[in-house]
Amino acid sequence: MRKVKILGLLGTGVIGGGWAARALHFGIDVIAADVKPEMEEWIRGAVANAEPALARLTMAPLPPKGKLSFTTDLKVMAQRADFIQENIPEQLPLKQRMLAEVSRNAAADVIIASSTSGLTPTDLQRDMLAPERFLVAHPFNPVYLLPLVELVGGEKTVQGTIDAAAKFFTYIGMHALHVRREVPGHLTDRLQEALWREILHLVNDGVATTGELDESIIYGPGLRWAAMGTNMIYHLAGGESGMRHMLAQFGPCLKWPWTKLEAPELTETLVDRMVEGTQAQAAGRSIRELERLRDDYLVAIQQVLRQYNIGAGATLRSLEERLYKDAATSHNATPAEPGKPLRLLDTVVRTEWVDYNRHMSDFRYGQVFGDAMDVLFRQVGVDEAYRDSGRMYYTVENHIKHLGEAKSGELLYVTAQVLKVDDKRLHVFQRLYRGRDDKQIATAEQMYLHVDTKAAKAGPADAKIRAKLESIAGQHAGLPAPPEAGRRVGRASH
Amino acid sequence: MRKVKILGLLGTGVIGGGWAARALHFGIDVIAADVKPEMEEWIRGAVANAEPALARLTMAPLPPKGKLSFTTDLKVMAQRADFIQENIPEQLPLKQRMLAEVSRNAAADVIIASSTSGLTPTDLQRDMLAPERFLVAHPFNPVYLLPLVELVGGEKTVQGTIDAAAKFFTYIGMHALHVRREVPGHLTDRLQEALWREILHLVNDGVATTGELDESIIYGPGLRWAAMGTNMIYHLAGGESGMRHMLAQFGPCLKWPWTKLEAPELTETLVDRMVEGTQAQAAGRSIRELERLRDDYLVAIQQVLRQYNIGAGATLRSLEERLYKDAATSHNATPAEPGKPLRLLDTVVRTEWVDYNRHMSDFRYGQVFGDAMDVLFRQVGVDEAYRDSGRMYYTVENHIKHLGEAKSGELLYVTAQVLKVDDKRLHVFQRLYRGRDDKQIATAEQMYLHVDTKAAKAGPADAKIRAKLESIAGQHAGLPAPPEAGRRVGRASH
Repeated sequence: MRKVKILGLLGTGVIGGGWAARALHFGIDVIAADVKPEMEEWIRGAVANAEPALARLTMAPLPPKGKLSFTTDLKVMAQRADFIQENIPEQLPLKQRMLAEVSRNAAADVIIASSTSGLTPTDLQRDMLAPERFLVAHPFNPVYLLPLVELVGGEKTVQGTIDAAAKFFTYIGMHALHVRREVPGHLTDRLQEALWREILHLVNDGVATTGELDESIIYGPGLRWAAMGTNMIYHLAGGESGMRHMLAQFGPCLKWPWTKLEAPELTETLVDRMVEGTQAQAAGRSIRELERLRDDYLVAIQQVLRQYNIGAGATLRSLEERLYKDAATSHNATPAEPGKPLRLLDTVVRTEWVDYNRHMSDFRYGQVFGDAMDVLFRQVGVDEAYRDSGRMYYTVENHIKHLGEAKSGELLYVTAQVLKVDDKRLHVFQRLYRGRDDKQIATAEQMYLHVDTKAAKAGPADAKIRAKLESIAGQHAGLPAPPEAGRRVGRASH
Repeated sequence: MRKVKILGLLGTGVIGGGWAARALHFGIDVIAADVKPEMEEWIRGAVANAEPALARLTMAPLPPKGKLSFTTDLKVMAQRADFIQENIPEQLPLKQRMLAEVSRNAAADVIIASSTSGLTPTDLQRDMLAPERFLVAHPFNPVYLLPLVELVGGEKTVQGTIDAAAKFFTYIGMHALHVRREVPGHLTDRLQEALWREILHLVNDGVATTGELDESIIYGPGLRWAAMGTNMIYHLAGGESGMRHMLAQFGPCLKWPWTKLEAPELTETLVDRMVEGTQAQAAGRSIRELERLRDDYLVAIQQVLRQYNIGAGATLRSLEERLYKDAATSHNATPAEPGKPLRLLDTVVRTEWVDYNRHMSDFRYGQVFGDAMDVLFRQVGVDEAYRDSGRMYYTVENHIKHLGEAKSGELLYVTAQVLKVDDKRLHVFQRLYRGRDDKQIATAEQMYLHVDTKAAKAGPADAKIRAKLESIAGQHAGLPAPPEAGRRVGRASH
């Protein structure tokens, strides 16, 4: 099969637009064909809308973007494209007719793929010229962000077609899943459709609203499904003997009316297939090891969702607001001890903080120092209400010195010494320690400026806040000056 | 209902252990009851295993951890607990008997909840004393990380019980979903079970393996389900007219054999309920706005998963390796222009980089400067192979000055000026610019040390790498010295 430099699109709806955006982004030219000339503007808009998200997917260097052209003449597209992707409405006779026409206009080494959600390739390739180069390549919305593409060959499709298509889709950042047997709906849509039809029943029977049913997924199983499927998840739920135990325990439920879908008989053969399948997936990893992986990604995803205040992230955010409020009103806050730096933060190195070197990335040191300063600011009264009043401290400078390393899972703590406070400026020195050996692994010398955010300029801090900071500075006045402070870069401190 | 200070657990399997870990972490004491004394050690182990992940869930200040005690005497637990959660095997007569016994030993204002996956509360509360304080509270594994808990009342349950239970579960960080009608399997397990039974059919029919079926979810719909359910996702797939268009377009598929589950008739009433439900979920937000939210979290989740090299994150990682390799072998790399700093990186402020102030967080400046340095290192030959040979540059110091702000979605670029190179040290000055107005918003003065990682000490860089860096330093020799470089914190540069 030929190298793909130009992708031809037959049909330009939501799916066609998604294919165009993805291909262009990874340097492939696209020629889109649609009988309706107004679709040119539409597809250009779709590509533009996809770009902001696509631009953030990876920071790796990209080849120059591909060029998009449009034609209402299917033949022109078929003659110029190196790979053709069909995305027209889900009607078998229409798809058969158009695919046959395209096949008569494209060279025999041009792969032709259909985005069909559920029609089978043997039906679709029936009237084509050179049907051996045809396959189903079923993507998921938004095509420009979701990596999955299901590849299904028909009776006349040759293996070389599947292999070459997989290579092309991998090139544009996708995960090609070879579906080895033709069934209506392929694999993914069969699973989605079962869930969807159960939703329709529950709404139809007045049991729940669409919103309640969505909540029933996104706060629970949906979080797990982002990186492990039902089989692996159930393998983990079965304890040390995994899927076999799980099937023994929940097998009887398959007879219960937990869905309107009847289960197959749980024969020995089926149990064996389920167990062998999940053992292959586990690939020698213990239940405990897989649980840790699951827990790691569940924590990390919830922290990402918190940034967007959506789903489980919104729950986490509400929880934290309550915790901060409780901490502020409790009498348990550690008071400043005269003659000792404040211990502000105890934390743990997250797995996703670690770089290729298996040590905490440089910029995460800055994050930990920043989190520690947030604790200090809350303690002296710089909280949400204060910020809402249009006042806050801005970081002006931060000079970090690295003295040691930390690995994933290690405990860390941060202490701070207030060097100087005036009406606008706050000069602080922080030390980051590794919990296991109390080794100091970094220092940070920081200058903050108090700002009136409405006037967008420096302004004096609230008197109460300044007084609290000055009280701390007073307690720190007797501490020795940190040797690392007041030095320029490259000037050794010891 | 009383304030919950002590949670009583009846039964201590995987679910009981999960409840214990979650409650203890958020400051609630736990008394666990199990007839088998060996379960004490088990539950203590389960709590210890949950702790590393739980400890990373939030950095908000936590109350002191709760205390765990264990008893084989159900009565002792029932008399001491303020709230009782039952987690024994899924057998109706056993649960009925045990719940009745517990109810006779617990004060009437103590809520009793069952973790049952699918039994109904009316059946479970049948023989209880004061059955109005009973409900189903169904959690999901791992209970200590997933926020979902389904609350279902039986015929004798009063609303006050549901409300008080919701308050308690929210306190320990959960999302309480009130299931308003009793059905076997509640809501979540009905949806999961439909998908699960379709999996069993596909494996039974020899269509696919468990691994293929898991892939069919995790690279596609599973990523979406982490924060939006099927209904919202289909609403977005319907274009501007949302769910109504989607049902018109895919309604006919409901008659097709895309799953072994038959769909209900798509009546006008059902269509109206689906449309009204999703409109309520959208809450006035346009399709475009919701698409942006979906795209944002899909990008962010894939970046998190990349750190764990799992699912879609593994796909992204492979893609990036290919892109870096292609970039290294292409002749398109920007050469150093004599007399100009190197332009190393063009990037975009990600939504999750922004803090409460709607500006890029301080530590993200460090991340961008670090990413830019990675580009420079790759350009001069410090790549994976070099690191694998046991050599690399470590950051010793980083002095960042903040001069301006950046908002979500803004373009940024970084330039670098090489100040000095010797056999071990590399002194660099970087500037971060905002794309829209070319305003310099930060500078970073950095010192790197070349290290022999096996010997764990400084060592000379490879001669070729040093030569490349010296060539750049030579081209930069005529540039003016940056006014911000060589200054200590608090010493103004202009």
